Amino acid sequence: MRQDEAQGAGTTLASFVAGTTWTDVAGQSHEAKRSILNFFATALGSAHDPAVTAALRVLSPFSGVATSAVIGRPERLDAMGAAFANAVSANLLDFDDTHLDTIIHPAAPVAAPVLALAQARGFSGRDVLTAFILGVEIECRVGNAVSPGHYARGWHITSTCGVFGAAAASGKLLGLSADQISNALGIAASQSAGIVENLSSAAKNVSVGNAARNGLFAALLAAEGYSASPFAIEGSLGWARAMGDEPDLARLTGGLGKTWEIAKNTYKPYPAGIVFHAVIDACFRLRERLGSHIEDIASITVQGSALLLARGDRPVRNERDARVSIHHCAACALLLGAAGITEFSAAMVFRPDLVSWRQKVRAELDGSLPDGAARVVIQLTSGEALSEIVMAAKGSLADPLSDRAIEAKLRDCARLGESDWDIDRIIDGVWRIDTLDDISGLMGVGR
Amino acid sequence: MRQDEAQGAGTTLASFVAGTTWTDVAGQSHEAKRSILNFFATALGSAHDPAVTAALRVLSPFSGVATSAVIGRPERLDAMGAAFANAVSANLLDFDDTHLDTIIHPAAPVAAPVLALAQARGFSGRDVLTAFILGVEIECRVGNAVSPGHYARGWHITSTCGVFGAAAASGKLLGLSADQISNALGIAASQSAGIVENLSSAAKNVSVGNAARNGLFAALLAAEGYSASPFAIEGSLGWARAMGDEPDLARLTGGLGKTWEIAKNTYKPYPAGIVFHAVIDACFRLRERLGSHIEDIASITVQGSALLLARGDRPVRNERDARVSIHHCAACALLLGAAGITEFSAAMVFRPDLVSWRQKVRAELDGSLPDGAARVVIQLTSGEALSEIVMAAKGSLADPLSDRAIEAKLRDCARLGESDWDIDRIIDGVWRIDTLDDISGLMGVGR
Repeated sequence: MRQDEAQGAGTTLASFVAGTTWTDVAGQSHEAKRSILNFFATALGSAHDPAVTAALRVLSPFSGVATSAVIGRPERLDAMGAAFANAVSANLLDFDDTHLDTIIHPAAPVAAPVLALAQARGFSGRDVLTAFILGVEIECRVGNAVSPGHYARGWHITSTCGVFGAAAASGKLLGLSADQISNALGIAASQSAGIVENLSSAAKNVSVGNAARNGLFAALLAAEGYSASPFAIEGSLGWARAMGDEPDLARLTGGLGKTWEIAKNTYKPYPAGIVFHAVIDACFRLRERLGSHIEDIASITVQGSALLLARGDRPVRNERDARVSIHHCAACALLLGAAGITEFSAAMVFRPDLVSWRQKVRAELDGSLPDGAARVVIQLTSGEALSEIVMAAKGSLADPLSDRAIEAKLRDCARLGESDWDIDRIIDGVWRIDTLDDISGLMGVGR
Repeated sequence: MRQDEAQGAGTTLASFVAGTTWTDVAGQSHEAKRSILNFFATALGSAHDPAVTAALRVLSPFSGVATSAVIGRPERLDAMGAAFANAVSANLLDFDDTHLDTIIHPAAPVAAPVLALAQARGFSGRDVLTAFILGVEIECRVGNAVSPGHYARGWHITSTCGVFGAAAASGKLLGLSADQISNALGIAASQSAGIVENLSSAAKNVSVGNAARNGLFAALLAAEGYSASPFAIEGSLGWARAMGDEPDLARLTGGLGKTWEIAKNTYKPYPAGIVFHAVIDACFRLRERLGSHIEDIASITVQGSALLLARGDRPVRNERDARVSIHHCAACALLLGAAGITEFSAAMVFRPDLVSWRQKVRAELDGSLPDGAARVVIQLTSGEALSEIVMAAKGSLADPLSDRAIEAKLRDCARLGESDWDIDRIIDGVWRIDTLDDISGLMGVGR
């Protein structure tokens, strides 16, 4: 079939987004609320991070009427600026949600523009949930269509696919027609960017923030008549192929409305890369077995898939490296018995005992282990060896965080982020967001 | 050499940019002025295009203090918004300048943020020229390093490489250190986007506008401490390889300060894709030979390289298609003896005689012809055949537009764009821009 006789994937996705109502998505609303709670948790946790503060210094002189909250802070920006800032803070600590099939962190690029726009224009909680669920759906389907090659080739998939989700969600919230949403998705394809090489620097935050901001921008442009190719995603000179992938169209558009990607969302107990969670869990088990003999450890071998090694076998020069370091994760979990925000802060990176423990760790390929699993083998000074294998880490789909654990994570993050926002009101408000006529009450100090 | 022992290309480029002064670039200033004149020409020509007007409707509510002119119009925006809008208008008609080695249109993404920022902060004409020349240098070198595969794979190279030039130029204008400029270039790598599939839609304008806006954004973020990998361009998970290219580092960083890419800039006489210029010139010659026998043409065969066919053998559904259509270019040149803004306007697309003449045109591969050349063979109803071959089109480096021709182009564009800006003041001001203490006088109606 020639391209001009076929229906573009963007058209198919857009028709689905435009035609889906609250009733269609209500069954997914509990998971959506969990995702949004986790989004607030991580955004509050990084609210006063220097990267957020610096972004506000840059964006404030370039903001229109400041309609939308910067989460956890007193400042406001226009909706595009707030979308950028809140996506940055939500993703900054690598502590946000994870769609395991793609390693997309779905909420940051989608919830940020949805909440900023909803606050600016007074949309209801049901509008917000509907747009958010659909945005996550589109973002993860685009990611599915190009995984696993896309991320492996150097594309930061949360950024590159997030912009499609942000465009779909923003378009839905604005009430755009199917044609307009198709154009917004095509415009998103011309804004998709972000590289893995920059993951241990603030440039990573820029691509995540842009995904949120530019998805909203795409929807606003489409509302004013900007057009795009309906084949922008899958065309011969389109997004997927330029990015290096032969897109899997069945995964992009098959079963729309029958399966939901948000049902596969997961939430991290530790502010480290998702593939390191099994390493941390295995180390916790070993620490428990060793009891007071923890100082007898002579060497630590971490075994896992090629993905684990590609992501995590690296020098640690700063806290961003630490959050994606096999060595740092293992050292904290074994030596300190903890792997929270404190253990991945800048102050911990050069703590002498951790530096020395990181040097005991060696990473080793075990091709028989699936992504997300890990085996940790420790050798004691006595010569004795102990090992633990973890196939499904805490927080994974097989062992998900409970609702209460997500609430507790939010409280922890808010405390560490030194926010003065009313946390009880956020927790209560998100759980009953589908009853709110206007979500603005969620977006402020609100004492 | 391991990556952490090498100096990143971004560091090398940034040291060059930070260390280069007006004295070093003064020898390139005449070509820079020609480029900036041509930039004003095409921006004025599209000042009131619906795509620009729609962009302003979107951006106005999201603008901070409106410091910077939208060229050819009464509105102002903040410098990031104006950078977006002016890059859109400068590139909209496919009538802007061309760096033939890469097919980058250098000025739109670089001059737009430089002029917007200079107007906002009162920089001098020499500062503007220095930043502009360096921005073009970086943008084209990045393009050189990944050409010709990059564009062929579906990347809209003006957008994807333009953001690097915009970052370098903005960083230079802001007086950033070499380290900060290196970070700005790395941040640019995480914002590089834009696909060929969208070239015949307004989504193309979005990626060009973003290149300008986001390059400035990268420099502003770097000034506030945002960092990036020094290997963002060439690293194993960096920009070039993610985009699908093995970067040619010699073309990226070899001979810095010895050769100048702006010396290779060219200016179009016709508002069509650069590869169609030889087709138009050949048709003009044939029309002159035929005189009154023009109606005797039975069929038209256009022969050229694979690039010509890939870019131009397409259905014509709108004026964007027309500007990159072999058939439309040949039909206008032969039937009307003209190929100006009027001939590529929306009103011409479905003019019955042009539709019928387009149908007489057939495109044919001649692998022996280099990119940029074309042969046109016409068959008359009598059976007689005539042909013309053009190896170097009007406006190419071998047959460049004169200074006066660029001025005339600017006047034509301003008239067709219905701008009320003082054209004499722009022409005079650009030619003596290196004597201006403040370029703001160039950026307004100024009557």
